[in-house]
Amino acid sequence: MAASKRVSDRTKDVTMPLRKTAPQRASAPVVALDELNDRLGYFVRRLQVAIFQDFIRRLARIDVSPAQFSVLVVIAANPGLSQSELAKALGIERARLVRMLHRLELRKLTVRLPSSADGRRHALELTREGEKLLARAKVLAAEHEEAMRTKLGPERHRQLLELARGFDG
Amino acid sequence: MAASKRVSDRTKDVTMPLRKTAPQRASAPVVALDELNDRLGYFVRRLQVAIFQDFIRRLARIDVSPAQFSVLVVIAANPGLSQSELAKALGIERARLVRMLHRLELRKLTVRLPSSADGRRHALELTREGEKLLARAKVLAAEHEEAMRTKLGPERHRQLLELARGFDG
Repeated sequence: MAASKRVSDRTKDVTMPLRKTAPQRASAPVVALDELNDRLGYFVRRLQVAIFQDFIRRLARIDVSPAQFSVLVVIAANPGLSQSELAKALGIERARLVRMLHRLELRKLTVRLPSSADGRRHALELTREGEKLLARAKVLAAEHEEAMRTKLGPERHRQLLELARGFDG
Repeated sequence: MAASKRVSDRTKDVTMPLRKTAPQRASAPVVALDELNDRLGYFVRRLQVAIFQDFIRRLARIDVSPAQFSVLVVIAANPGLSQSELAKALGIERARLVRMLHRLELRKLTVRLPSSADGRRHALELTREGEKLLARAKVLAAEHEEAMRTKLGPERHRQLLELARGFDG
């Protein structure tokens, strides 16, 4: 709103106000978020970034990203799952999942078996290495969850999990 | 678990199980998420992606991303804000914010004024064009929020907003 008053004084460059210096501000001010305070997406994104930062840091030692963790968990829990079923279940774009699976295969963590039901369809499974890595990842992910529970407070953590889990896309 | 039995039978290629076909699965099965059901990050990410998809689609016509919207709102609401204050307030990495501001300046939506208090410091403001675009963006963002409220249900939306907003990083 402040800028619009100055704009009416502009004569040459519409992108540059005439005034040469900006108003002074007290140091370490409280920044107003204005209508962002009513935007669920803004706060859910801040929360998601904070959670992922903790997860990524804890699982960096075994080089497993949040998305890779989800993929490994769901493959292990659903023997014979196809790529398209996995993509749909996790809400991952097909092309991105194909790239992820390619990298996991290069690391010898997952394999694609031809399906007995349909020759064109591939069924995903973990290798023994994949299972070993997933077991380590689950320990670190549980530590991560405990850290989030502590940081958020157990009650806020429980409510958020329940509310977010109930959202079906 | 299934893979580990097969692996012990392998003789040649450790990445390929001996069995030639995978077990059959019923069509359209319910995929088990296993321990992802206890991972707040998994569901918060799903929710965040769904919210952002709606926001991005609605603001595509004016070419404003969620991050750009946040930046424009906070600059407008805090005259004379510095880059580092903005980065800190929004939790955006400094280098990423610099790139964002560069693009907004090229579109003549924001300007950097030399600060009267400190010559090295720059104060951010919207141009008249920036204010006009922000006004349109706010209308679309409010429509987006109303759509989310409908999709989530007003009570779940209110609770999620309150819980996520209360998280201070």
